[in-house]
Amino acid sequence: MTDADAAAPPHLLLGSCDYPEHVPQDRWTRYAEQQRSAGLHFVRIAEFAWSRLEPEPGRYDWAWLDHAIEAYHGAGLKVVLCTLTATPPAWLIRAHPEVLPYDEQGRVREFGSRRHYDFASPVYREHSRRVTLAMALRYGRHPAVVGWQTDNEFGCHATSRSYGGASAAAFPEWLRQRYTVVERLNEAWGNVFWSMEYVSFDQIRPPILTVTELNPSHVLDYARHCSSLIADFQREQVEILREMSPGRFITHNFMIFESGFDHYEVARGLDFASWDNYPLGMLEHFAPPGAGDDVKTRYARTGHPDLIALNHDIYRSLASGGAGLGREGRGTPPGMWVMEQQCGQVNWAPYNPLPADGAVALWTAQAWAHGADVVSYFRWRAATMAQEVMHSGLLRHDETEDRGLAEVRALDQSQFPAGDVPARVALLHDYESLWLYDQQPHAAGMTYWAQVVAYYGALRSLGVDVDIVHADADVSAYAVVVAPAITLMSPERAERWTRAVQGGVKLVSGPRTAFRMPGGQTWAAGQPGPLSDLLGVKLLQFDSLRPTLTQDVSGPGGAFQAQTWAESYRLEGAQATYTYAGGPLDGHAAVAAHGNATVIGAHSPDLLRAVLSDVLAGAGVEVTHLPEGVRISRRAGRTLVQNWTTERVTWQDHTLEPVSFEVLAHA
Amino acid sequence: MTDADAAAPPHLLLGSCDYPEHVPQDRWTRYAEQQRSAGLHFVRIAEFAWSRLEPEPGRYDWAWLDHAIEAYHGAGLKVVLCTLTATPPAWLIRAHPEVLPYDEQGRVREFGSRRHYDFASPVYREHSRRVTLAMALRYGRHPAVVGWQTDNEFGCHATSRSYGGASAAAFPEWLRQRYTVVERLNEAWGNVFWSMEYVSFDQIRPPILTVTELNPSHVLDYARHCSSLIADFQREQVEILREMSPGRFITHNFMIFESGFDHYEVARGLDFASWDNYPLGMLEHFAPPGAGDDVKTRYARTGHPDLIALNHDIYRSLASGGAGLGREGRGTPPGMWVMEQQCGQVNWAPYNPLPADGAVALWTAQAWAHGADVVSYFRWRAATMAQEVMHSGLLRHDETEDRGLAEVRALDQSQFPAGDVPARVALLHDYESLWLYDQQPHAAGMTYWAQVVAYYGALRSLGVDVDIVHADADVSAYAVVVAPAITLMSPERAERWTRAVQGGVKLVSGPRTAFRMPGGQTWAAGQPGPLSDLLGVKLLQFDSLRPTLTQDVSGPGGAFQAQTWAESYRLEGAQATYTYAGGPLDGHAAVAAHGNATVIGAHSPDLLRAVLSDVLAGAGVEVTHLPEGVRISRRAGRTLVQNWTTERVTWQDHTLEPVSFEVLAHA
Amino acid sequence: MTDADAAAPPHLLLGSCDYPEHVPQDRWTRYAEQQRSAGLHFVRIAEFAWSRLEPEPGRYDWAWLDHAIEAYHGAGLKVVLCTLTATPPAWLIRAHPEVLPYDEQGRVREFGSRRHYDFASPVYREHSRRVTLAMALRYGRHPAVVGWQTDNEFGCHATSRSYGGASAAAFPEWLRQRYTVVERLNEAWGNVFWSMEYVSFDQIRPPILTVTELNPSHVLDYARHCSSLIADFQREQVEILREMSPGRFITHNFMIFESGFDHYEVARGLDFASWDNYPLGMLEHFAPPGAGDDVKTRYARTGHPDLIALNHDIYRSLASGGAGLGREGRGTPPGMWVMEQQCGQVNWAPYNPLPADGAVALWTAQAWAHGADVVSYFRWRAATMAQEVMHSGLLRHDETEDRGLAEVRALDQSQFPAGDVPARVALLHDYESLWLYDQQPHAAGMTYWAQVVAYYGALRSLGVDVDIVHADADVSAYAVVVAPAITLMSPERAERWTRAVQGGVKLVSGPRTAFRMPGGQTWAAGQPGPLSDLLGVKLLQFDSLRPTLTQDVSGPGGAFQAQTWAESYRLEGAQATYTYAGGPLDGHAAVAAHGNATVIGAHSPDLLRAVLSDVLAGAGVEVTHLPEGVRISRRAGRTLVQNWTTERVTWQDHTLEPVSFEVLAHA
Ligand SMILES: [Zn+2]
Ligand SMILES: [Zn+2]
Ligand SMILES: [Zn+2]
Repeated sequence: MTDADAAAPPHLLLGSCDYPEHVPQDRWTRYAEQQRSAGLHFVRIAEFAWSRLEPEPGRYDWAWLDHAIEAYHGAGLKVVLCTLTATPPAWLIRAHPEVLPYDEQGRVREFGSRRHYDFASPVYREHSRRVTLAMALRYGRHPAVVGWQTDNEFGCHATSRSYGGASAAAFPEWLRQRYTVVERLNEAWGNVFWSMEYVSFDQIRPPILTVTELNPSHVLDYARHCSSLIADFQREQVEILREMSPGRFITHNFMIFESGFDHYEVARGLDFASWDNYPLGMLEHFAPPGAGDDVKTRYARTGHPDLIALNHDIYRSLASGGAGLGREGRGTPPGMWVMEQQCGQVNWAPYNPLPADGAVALWTAQAWAHGADVVSYFRWRAATMAQEVMHSGLLRHDETEDRGLAEVRALDQSQFPAGDVPARVALLHDYESLWLYDQQPHAAGMTYWAQVVAYYGALRSLGVDVDIVHADADVSAYAVVVAPAITLMSPERAERWTRAVQGGVKLVSGPRTAFRMPGGQTWAAGQPGPLSDLLGVKLLQFDSLRPTLTQDVSGPGGAFQAQTWAESYRLEGAQATYTYAGGPLDGHAAVAAHGNATVIGAHSPDLLRAVLSDVLAGAGVEVTHLPEGVRISRRAGRTLVQNWTTERVTWQDHTLEPVSFEVLAHA
Repeated sequence: MTDADAAAPPHLLLGSCDYPEHVPQDRWTRYAEQQRSAGLHFVRIAEFAWSRLEPEPGRYDWAWLDHAIEAYHGAGLKVVLCTLTATPPAWLIRAHPEVLPYDEQGRVREFGSRRHYDFASPVYREHSRRVTLAMALRYGRHPAVVGWQTDNEFGCHATSRSYGGASAAAFPEWLRQRYTVVERLNEAWGNVFWSMEYVSFDQIRPPILTVTELNPSHVLDYARHCSSLIADFQREQVEILREMSPGRFITHNFMIFESGFDHYEVARGLDFASWDNYPLGMLEHFAPPGAGDDVKTRYARTGHPDLIALNHDIYRSLASGGAGLGREGRGTPPGMWVMEQQCGQVNWAPYNPLPADGAVALWTAQAWAHGADVVSYFRWRAATMAQEVMHSGLLRHDETEDRGLAEVRALDQSQFPAGDVPARVALLHDYESLWLYDQQPHAAGMTYWAQVVAYYGALRSLGVDVDIVHADADVSAYAVVVAPAITLMSPERAERWTRAVQGGVKLVSGPRTAFRMPGGQTWAAGQPGPLSDLLGVKLLQFDSLRPTLTQDVSGPGGAFQAQTWAESYRLEGAQATYTYAGGPLDGHAAVAAHGNATVIGAHSPDLLRAVLSDVLAGAGVEVTHLPEGVRISRRAGRTLVQNWTTERVTWQDHTLEPVSFEVLAHA
Repeated sequence: MTDADAAAPPHLLLGSCDYPEHVPQDRWTRYAEQQRSAGLHFVRIAEFAWSRLEPEPGRYDWAWLDHAIEAYHGAGLKVVLCTLTATPPAWLIRAHPEVLPYDEQGRVREFGSRRHYDFASPVYREHSRRVTLAMALRYGRHPAVVGWQTDNEFGCHATSRSYGGASAAAFPEWLRQRYTVVERLNEAWGNVFWSMEYVSFDQIRPPILTVTELNPSHVLDYARHCSSLIADFQREQVEILREMSPGRFITHNFMIFESGFDHYEVARGLDFASWDNYPLGMLEHFAPPGAGDDVKTRYARTGHPDLIALNHDIYRSLASGGAGLGREGRGTPPGMWVMEQQCGQVNWAPYNPLPADGAVALWTAQAWAHGADVVSYFRWRAATMAQEVMHSGLLRHDETEDRGLAEVRALDQSQFPAGDVPARVALLHDYESLWLYDQQPHAAGMTYWAQVVAYYGALRSLGVDVDIVHADADVSAYAVVVAPAITLMSPERAERWTRAVQGGVKLVSGPRTAFRMPGGQTWAAGQPGPLSDLLGVKLLQFDSLRPTLTQDVSGPGGAFQAQTWAESYRLEGAQATYTYAGGPLDGHAAVAAHGNATVIGAHSPDLLRAVLSDVLAGAGVEVTHLPEGVRISRRAGRTLVQNWTTERVTWQDHTLEPVSFEVLAHA
């Protein structure tokens, strides 16, 4: 970042992830200068460098990293450093094998890749603090260092939970803290059900290897426990960094659709959230049920716009309003970062196609429009070794410039000004609901994310900007609030929602909303429990539909076919706006409206769109019906029009080339 | 049951499964009265209540169950009590972890769901006797208690066999009892084959984790051993109950298509068999290979009539003629019970649709027509906790009456009189054959149950009533005996069949009949070994057909295409009635008749129907060609006509509404 | 073999695998005479006879085998004996459980089938030498014994590698031998990548159970280590046999597409290679990705000609030129044997159809034409016991002659003279490349064997004879050399190829050729590393195509569609002969020619055929465009024309019946 930049109106900045330890030292200055001249301002380094920085217990080798940081600094790059804990070195693991985590089969997960540690391990906690302190002492006040990334991609490769060892050992005490006496746990879990009652907390183990299905309450509490371990683990690092590296931001690079921990809990204490955006791998590997072969083919070289956008919106909203340093001061943007941005083929999906021409630029523009202040490409140069030899970078193995770099270089960053995303719609999100939802799907494919994606996709196809906020957030300022899958309901949450709706917010909730008590049981007085008054209905039936079965629904917006799921309601104040026809639900209410609150019991993307369109219009939110593959997103008073198709598209008066975008200077 | 009932001609009675320990005490009397007023006579309780009845080692808490039983008694309900052993409580497991069973991967199966015990565990045996005695002493002579269910669903969740621990430790001694000297075992198992000969019994372990496929004889004997452990385990309970609870019946609720143990062995000593009938889960989850997506869709809301009927016929015949108490005396019917009858959606299949309107009534009527004297719905009220929150009951979570209860209430029970099923056809069944058959299927999908279902379905489509009897049963009184898959043949069995056929019984056997000796080897003199004379053939070739291959067959009934399997015969007395055309079997006999005996070597449902139709006609058994989805079943001089389709159907002079039945007052 | 035979011009001879220990002694002489009268000359015995030969530790029982060998000898059969080590008996395993191997899940693989040993076990090594010595002493100079088979089917059932126990324990020392200091290992493996650097060799374990994907270099070296263990294991046996059984050949029966060890390393020291040819099981079970349902159906009863031929060509070339004894002397042919030849249905694939009429004869003829000097059918009589009851033999269970025997009996062996396969094309093969290729396929289905089969099949469809030779072999005498998947490239290998091409050999290489350094990393200067000059290209992009995506390619031979894989090149001296159109590779070179060297970057069987056809013509190799299912193979001045279809086929002036062959007396 030049001084000129600092003076200019703030706009999107770029960076890359680099690994000086992977290349000869004679490359460091050259790479840094190339990065800067390509328009990059940031570089993230060192998340896997432990074995190089501490090659033997207690013997640090800082020299090389000193030089590398100097090289970036000399070229005018700002450095994001990482705590080293994602990859404990062999000497630590062989000395303390109890650091290793356990998988869901009860097996020790071995050294030899990454993330091989148990968050609860006291030994590892000590090493984590020690090595974080060492890093912070060495580099915490270095002028090039603007911020920190904790660890790397918590939860990746199903590492949120260790099912043995230290995490298992800590579970009874965590339960004791939560329930005080075991009778309350037995009650909350419904352990009487299959004679599963415990006499003491010490009898309780991780929820694995049971003869048949697990008690979902058991699973839920283990998920909560493990989530809190991650939060604790990170908090220890954050405290050290805050003290030893003043004025620098702290973030973490979260994962696509990662579900293993409560991101709201773990994001607490960070300045802002980052995430790692791999659109093509996401579509092949992480897409929720429902993305069929046709969708995967259509978007094979661009990724699906709504899947990407949903993750942007989650992470933009996750730690917003935190103690970010702001663009002033140390040149650090306040907002969400894409810490790793795909810029060529990845290597970890079943198929790893090349991005379309224009895709890297489109991803960058979309990231901006959804709130990113920095997009940092992964990685500067493609790795020539080990697990990621087939993964691309901005430079090829042979150090020539890859296709992505040409697109990055051609970007006019100034067209992406900083500013707010003017969302008037909030989609409610809650990891505890996710855990419960997916424990007992009842219909294969009926998952939390599938529901969220269906509602979110419907909103985006209507041209609406969306914040993703916690189910307990204050939503009184939104026009419309959508709750696709908030299945866990506390009386407090119900009261908060009720107040918001009474205050004029329009609420649309999906199937199974409020189906569960916070412990995982359902309401003895029927669902939706404490939300019954607000929604004006009681749950009557729920029907789980195999792919070859559908259920007809019709109403003012037309006739639709529910797939996968159909639930019906007894009206207690609400009015049926859509009704089932035929089958066991014939004549039952499928959608019911009760003042500002609407509940949708049937799963049908087209029905969703019809209902949401009406509600949005009623709330005065502008609706724009977009064709397949065209999306609009607004930020800072501008509108980004995106063409995600491989055809030229004319939309309104704009003509967009295949895989391209246009920034309109009005929202 | 009112006195009026007791005096009335005996007919089908109803009940439900209830869980007083799952609801507040203030519900008990109300529920009991609701049950009685809905026309229910029985209630089954307490199979998962151990942790409530013995919350700590040796400290019993009987009070709550005393009250609950009084509540049922007060409402005039008869109580079926369970032994508690399906769910040992946490205190027992943590004190004696060696009670836990091992899975086929050699892993301990953990506490936290149910059925987590090894049948051979000496510690568990002791606790089983102790707690059964305690229950029997407390309630064995209570006037409301009419009978006992042992444990719950033996074998469910693959629990018939523990592959380590006590079951493994007991295996050598079981083998020593069977073979006396290890040389006889080596001979019977053919251990010379791959140098697998043992020098002592102690060297022998459960058949798991071998480098490649297992010796089927090894598998067979481990299955026999584990089956005998279940029988022993139950026998200990039965002995205590017989002594301490005189005049009460003892039964067990067996499982859909459960294959892990010899049901004939385990049923010995029971008064009658019960089973748990979940038609929709059965179709999605337990259906043998061959039920394609079209079948699963057509019957998604009713279940498949023949799959259900087959299970009824198995369990009706399983312990018939036992020491049932009879309707007189304590009001207990003599016959088979459906101990758990689906009455709404289940929760354990990939998809769990709602039953069609009328399905609960149809299932109840069908159960009666196939010999059930009691149908007991699972469960009274839907569970609000733990693993089965998504499962239905007769009452919803909110205690309103669910759809099933309306159908139950509307049933006229008197139209279902007690009496015999007039079957003139016996289908032979044998768990040892099942184990062998499925060890070496040779063609994917060529399973024991797939064969049985094919033959049984053909018979039912011909309107014929069927008994399912053990392959060693006396079948001399039947007109036709069908042996779809009796692959294990002892000389004694062959002699018994031969005598029956010589006595005029017509025999139809399927492929691989008598392929194996009792030890699992095949006959050195060729198949079908000691049955060769009776069938007048020797096996020539067998062909395993991938789904894209078929084999033409033709004969007097027309031309057919064999799928999956085709075997051919050298005629040694028999005559070929159907012959293969084309391919490696060109010109070989596909079906051969030898006096009263017919063998069918080709797998083709249409061919089966053609051959069986001829044989039945020849035996003077009335054949009624029924359209798809229409079935008839006879009992007590009446005929139940069933429409399993969702269309109105006219059959002969009867018009049946979708998913409905009619009871004709003539057989 | 009669004296007449010995005098006759050498031609293909036949044999069978027999198991005297499986049948009563009264059969031995009868079987031997039947074998001889059916035209068989050889019999292989005793590979699973350990428990019969040494029923207790140290107590040998030779008597029965003495008698059996005498019976064969008496009938004029030559005996191939086996070392006994494929099946250690129970007494050995129970006394030394540490002999058992570990699977990829870290579990002990149990006794009860076969191949249950760890090649590195010092205890087992000792027993292996002891029992081999005992056998050699007893029978090594017996006049009937002409040769030895070591063990049986190394690697079968994924037994090449034990992932624990002795193999794991020996790994650090193997690494120390290879790298001397651990820094060199860290460098070669690229362990810096994820902080995976080791401080000492002792810290290194087998590559299993890591949190996420393995370092391919770690996998590669473990594969090398385990391969060397197999070679060592066998070498110990070979040394004993050479000393104690002079003048006898030593071979091993390798497996279809076995990939677990370096066959070139293990074949060293053998006189020739044998293999076990099961064409139908091969197609159902071992076929590389790409053999769709249509292919599996079309060739269900014959197997796929090219898959079989490829294995023949691999094993013919594997140890050719070794110290074979020649047909003179002890009547032993010099060449490759088919040690086990399918002659009826097998029992180990998902479907196990009967061979077509004529298939056994066709397989035998094809084996000859691809270099086999002996074809030995598996097995003489079908087993009546244990794991292979459903497997066929030349005799049925009932000792009648099965269909295969009729075909064998009818063969005129003299039409198959000994002699050379006149291949002018070499296909390069390398197990290290295989291991690397399949570690990181990047596109599901992009495997080493799929690539090899595609190129090999194209060659065979062009009527060309092929040698399969090691990637480091001297290929200067060939006209054309094809390298479908040699992804590992050392500078020495590159130099050898370059010299050959400079010497006039034409080279065609496939995608990913030379992508990797010998340690598993890729070239920092870009691919194809040291082959860049020779090929005149640098790798530009590689694209991984899901099955629903294709990439257009066109050039002089027409327009094609790449599937699964498409890579493009920057031209540095070469000329683009085929170019991509559309998509991210638009306009890039897909096929590039540089003098005698051609590289093909796109995966398309039709494109391969077009390019190869041109190159072959340019090299003066005669090309014959063959229709589907028709193949020609040449040997000893004759041409075998084969019809693998079930239709009559006219090709040139020859009319072939379904599944048949013709031997033309000119090449
Ligand atoms: Zn700037
Ligand atoms: Zn009554
Ligand atoms: Zn000869």
